[in-house]
Order: sequence, then structure tokens, then C-alpha cells
Amino acid sequence: QYLDHEQALADFASILYSLQENRSAYDSKIIAFGGSYGGMLSAWFRFQYPSLVTGAIAASAPIFAFLGEGFEFYENGGNDYWKAVTHTAGPRCADRIRSAFVTLMAYKSMKDLASTYGLCEKPVNVLDVALWVANVFDTLAMGSFPFRSNYLTDNPAYYLPAYPMKAACSAALAESEDIGALFAAASVFYNVSQQEKCFKIPKTTGSKSNDRFSGKLWTYQWCKSMLPEEFYFTMNGKDDMFFKYNDPFSVEQVSKACSKAIKGLKTDPLKIRKRYGSPPQFLGSVSRIVFSNGLLDPWHTGSVTSISPEQQTRDLHVLNIPSGAHHVDLMFTNPGDAPDVTAARKQQVQIISSWLDSSDELSAIA
Amino acid sequence: QYLDHEQALADFASILYSLQENRSAYDSKIIAFGGSYGGMLSAWFRFQYPSLVTGAIAASAPIFAFLGEGFEFYENGGNDYWKAVTHTAGPRCADRIRSAFVTLMAYKSMKDLASTYGLCEKPVNVLDVALWVANVFDTLAMGSFPFRSNYLTDNPAYYLPAYPMKAACSAALAESEDIGALFAAASVFYNVSQQEKCFKIPKTTGSKSNDRFSGKLWTYQWCKSMLPEEFYFTMNGKDDMFFKYNDPFSVEQVSKACSKAIKGLKTDPLKIRKRYGSPPQFLGSVSRIVFSNGLLDPWHTGSVTSISPEQQTRDLHVLNIPSGAHHVDLMFTNPGDAPDVTAARKQQVQIISSWLDSSDELSAIA
Repeated sequence: QYLDHEQALADFASILYSLQENRSAYDSKIIAFGGSYGGMLSAWFRFQYPSLVTGAIAASAPIFAFLGEGFEFYENGGNDYWKAVTHTAGPRCADRIRSAFVTLMAYKSMKDLASTYGLCEKPVNVLDVALWVANVFDTLAMGSFPFRSNYLTDNPAYYLPAYPMKAACSAALAESEDIGALFAAASVFYNVSQQEKCFKIPKTTGSKSNDRFSGKLWTYQWCKSMLPEEFYFTMNGKDDMFFKYNDPFSVEQVSKACSKAIKGLKTDPLKIRKRYGSPPQFLGSVSRIVFSNGLLDPWHTGSVTSISPEQQTRDLHVLNIPSGAHHVDLMFTNPGDAPDVTAARKQQVQIISSWLDSSDELSAIA
Repeated sequence: QYLDHEQALADFASILYSLQENRSAYDSKIIAFGGSYGGMLSAWFRFQYPSLVTGAIAASAPIFAFLGEGFEFYENGGNDYWKAVTHTAGPRCADRIRSAFVTLMAYKSMKDLASTYGLCEKPVNVLDVALWVANVFDTLAMGSFPFRSNYLTDNPAYYLPAYPMKAACSAALAESEDIGALFAAASVFYNVSQQEKCFKIPKTTGSKSNDRFSGKLWTYQWCKSMLPEEFYFTMNGKDDMFFKYNDPFSVEQVSKACSKAIKGLKTDPLKIRKRYGSPPQFLGSVSRIVFSNGLLDPWHTGSVTSISPEQQTRDLHVLNIPSGAHHVDLMFTNPGDAPDVTAARKQQVQIISSWLDSSDELSAIA
């Protein structure tokens, strides 16, 4: 039960207070940083502990991709996410992939599928295979770094190429055969090691066991508060390049699967809505947060991408980075960095400086 | 363990969210109210749940009477509290009481004390008696209402007179004999029923059992976070009208007594400092709170009684009420109300109106 995000924030607070105490550094200002889930924690930390942290950098933090009154993200079931993936792939690639999925979804023989495309075992159904492929594309969209990166591979020895979506699209476009095109694209990610003997398709839809729930730590966290996960966002094959999949996981299904995966766990799907309010309520009651978004990264669709002039007066900032990937702004500088990424980092430094310099209450007691 | 103040705030939030949900009243603004401990909760609630409550009225809320870095209240051991009691008594009364305490503290025979002044049993020591008397004066200072009131008596049938400190002082000044003067003053409170057969002196200093810890609910709360309690504020008999009592309770003593009183309870004396920051840090990170203080009430010494121009820009307000008692502004209007109390109530209404009218984020989605 110590994995709840509020416990994580309390832990941060406890550690930071100890540091202040041990070094008699009570007046040293603290800036919270984080990307992705860490970006959400960063923004929520500033909300919950405003006297402890002076400001927060929340990079690629989908704090609005939650259930509840006032959250627009789920109005179309989170499909904006898959639309953004499609946008990152580009129209030529999207057309190829979309028509290839039509062929895949019509495929009947699971045995043939397994033998023709080198799957380790016969898949439960074609949907499991399609979802397995689809999950490549959003991962690669997130990882649209202008340099090779091991951030999203499970093994630090294996690097995805720079702009890996382009690599996957090229691979798909080079294949004349539909399903082969999908597997060519999938191989960019799933065979990043170039040493896979066969592909293992996780069981997610057609069987009693669900491989989505195997990692206990993260499962606990997203189960507890319904943290956003791409596999409960809808696809329709029109606005996106995928296929009709419009009832991925209902709240009830998630709750059920969660309490099965972790004994006794109760999901609280409205937890975030209740704790932080609706998007306008949240933005109406915080100050000093930078929300940065890589627009190639589909998670920007659930994040803070625009703020009102009134919100700007409270030192809230949005930095949208057109050629940015998932929290690329928090990564080390790289010769391949696009100018807009570099500019965003500079702006963050300037904003943080202004927070540290401001002669507000905190420095007044120094 | 559900008595912790943070649990109380979470309960408020849960109830309020349910109300919003059941009535589809997500855009209805909420103002928190409270006096004394409730005033602290009100201010802390606005701090912790700013997207849920638009603003807070914190009446006679001693949120700065805590331990930790940056809290000035304890620099002289909280003696400002007893100084304020003395100030409310006025110089003539204070001189009488101060010299009477000198006589009491020098008294040797506990047996004589009990028989002469009608105590139910022989007191453990003279200090217990002196503290029992002293606690009358701060109670009456808190209860300096301009009308008779049953707020501080344990029985709703019994009313203290209007301005009860004056009544106690008159009683003391009418007695020529020192210790008799103290008991005359004490009777205003302890014999409010006029039916007491003898006075029961709680055991607080000289014996193993400590009657301070008998009420479990409140004991849990102040034990847990070291909520301010007058019996660990120092007296010196010079700046105040009492007697030398400069090591009332150390943090260690309180912790020990607390874990004895409630099995397994661990006090966290810096809990409030850690959660809300030092006074300047707290005031530097909140907005829309009214701190009202009755200056006849000694608790104003641990409360927010002044704010900076910068803090005022964040809609923080201090309303000091010179002739006010403990959160008298939250009580029903009374023909006897002093003009400054009435004026403070009017100001609160105006401030709340401005909060409700303000076209901020919350109303923007209405």
C-alpha cells in the first residue's frame, strides 16, 4: 500500500525536509522535476506541497488523461492519443499501416499466422496480434528522439535508431505484402536486438490470464488511481491508422482485472479528479509550473498544452515542442537536438532562474 | 489512527466531492469555515485542497503556535500566550493575582489548603493547585464575550457571565486574603453551576498519572502533531501575572506521556512544520484566507496577526478585533456585540462575495 502516488509525494517531502534539517538549509529553494509519470508527480507535488517546492517542471505529464467530470480527454475514449500517433507516422505511412491492419484483422488461421510470421506460439486471437503491433507505433512515437536511444528498450545494450517511427514506416513501406509490412515495422522495436528467434505475443484480450498485469509495481500504481495507459484508449481505424477497437477496457473491467492481479486492491477511478479537481479547477489553483510537451509524443494529448492569460499571471507556462519526443527536454543535450528542443531547455532555465531570484516570502527570511 | 488532522481534511474533501457529484454541482464554489482547531483545519484545507475550496475563513486559528524552524511563538516558550491573558485581565487585576500567586506558591501544608478552601481531596502539590487556578484565567480570556455564554462550560445549562474575566477580577479584588482571592476568581468558572460541593484539582505535575490525558479523542489529536495546548507554554510571574513555571512540558515529556496515554502512539512534533512550512513559507504559498483574531483571546499570539503587502495581493486578509474573544466573529449576532466584531463580520461577507464573484477559472467553466 506504500506505492500510492500520494505516499510517493509524502516520501519526497520527508526526504527534502530531512535535507533541509541536516544542512540547516531551510531557505534553500527547491524545484521539482519530472517526466511522464514523474512529470505528473512533479506537478502534483507543487500542488500539494507549495511551501516546500518553489516551482515544478512537468515534462510530458498527462495529468488530464484521467476519468471524471471536466476531463475532455476521455470524451472520445482517449482516441486523440492514437490520432497523435498516426499524425507522427505521417500520411503515407498511415495509409499503408491502416490498410495492412484491415488485412490482418480479417485473417482467420492463427496457426498460419504463427508459422508464416515467426510467432513463438499460436496467438489466442488476431486482436492480440494487432494490439501487439499497434503498441509498437505509440512507443516509437514517444521515442521520436533525433538520436539513437536505449530509453524505451528493455536492455541498455540495445538502441532504437534516431526517429524510430521513420525507420518503422520505411520498413513497412518497403514490404509489398500487408501483414508482412506490419511485422517489418514491429521488428524495429521487438527485434531491436536482431537476435529474437520468434515473437512472443502477450495474451491481452481473448484469454483468462492477462499479461498486461504481470509487472506488480507499475500495475499497482495504475490500478490504484487509473493512471492513463494506452491500452484503454479507443481506436477506430478512421481517425487513426489502426482498427476498430472501441471498448478496450471499461472501468469495471479494469477494476476487476486489477483486484484479481493484486489481491484486495480497490481501484479508485476518480481518485485524481477528486484530489486535484477538473482541469480548469487544477489550473485555477496552482502556480509556478512549466508544462512541456513533445508534440511527436502522443502523450501530449492528455497533458496541459494551453493555458489562459489569467493562468499565465500565476507563472504557469506551456512549452510545446513541435519536433519533441517524450520528455526529450529533460534528457542530456545531443548534437542532434532540434532547435525547438534546445530553445525549450533555455526557456526552462530562464523560468527557474526567475523563480529562484524572486524576492518572495521564501527569500525574505534568508 | 483516523483522528489525524490530515484524515479529517481528506474526509471533508470526500464529503464535499460526493455533494458535488450527487447534485451535479461541480461548479459551485465552496468556502471553508472554522474557529480554533477548526480554524486551523480551515486554513490547512485551503492549503491542501485549493481546487476544491475557493477560500477559507480561519477564526482564532493558532497555526503558528507549533514547534520547528521559523516559528517565533516558542522562542520564549509560548509565554506570549500568558502575557496576553494578563493583558486581558488588566493591570489592577494582574497585580492582585500576581501577588496572590506568590502567597499560594509559598504555601506548605496541602492538608490545610484542602480544608481551608474546600478541595475534595488533599492536592499532590501546590503547583497542581496553581495551574488549576491559572487555567481559569486563560479560559475566561478566551471567553471574553460581551454576552453570557455557555460555550466554555461543560454543561449547556450553565452560563458564564458577559466579560467573565471582569467578573473573576472583581471577585478577586473584593477578597482581602491572597489565596482566597484566587479561589474567588476560580469559582467564577469552576463553580459556574453554583452547586459544587468541593473543588477537584486535576493531578498534572507531581504524580505518575496525569489527568491531562484523560480525554482520548482530543488527546490523540494534540499528541499526534503537538497541537498547541496552554499547559506547555511557560509562565514567569513577571511578564505575566502567574508564577515561575518555565519547564512545563518538554517535547520528550509530552511524547512519553502521549505514548503512555494512547498505546503505541508516536508523536511527530514537527509534523505541522514539515507539512506546511515555516510561517513565511506558509503565507508565501497560499491565497484567499481570512485570518480573524479576537485580541482579548490569548490564542491570537499563535495566530496570523499581520501580513505583508505581497501576501495581500494573494487575497490573504487579517482581521484583528480588539474587543473580540475566541472566534466570536463566527458566533451568532448578539445585541451586545462590539462594533469591531460587527465590522469584522461585514468584512468577511464582502471578502467572501468577492471570492464568489471573481470570474476566475472556476466560474469560467460554469
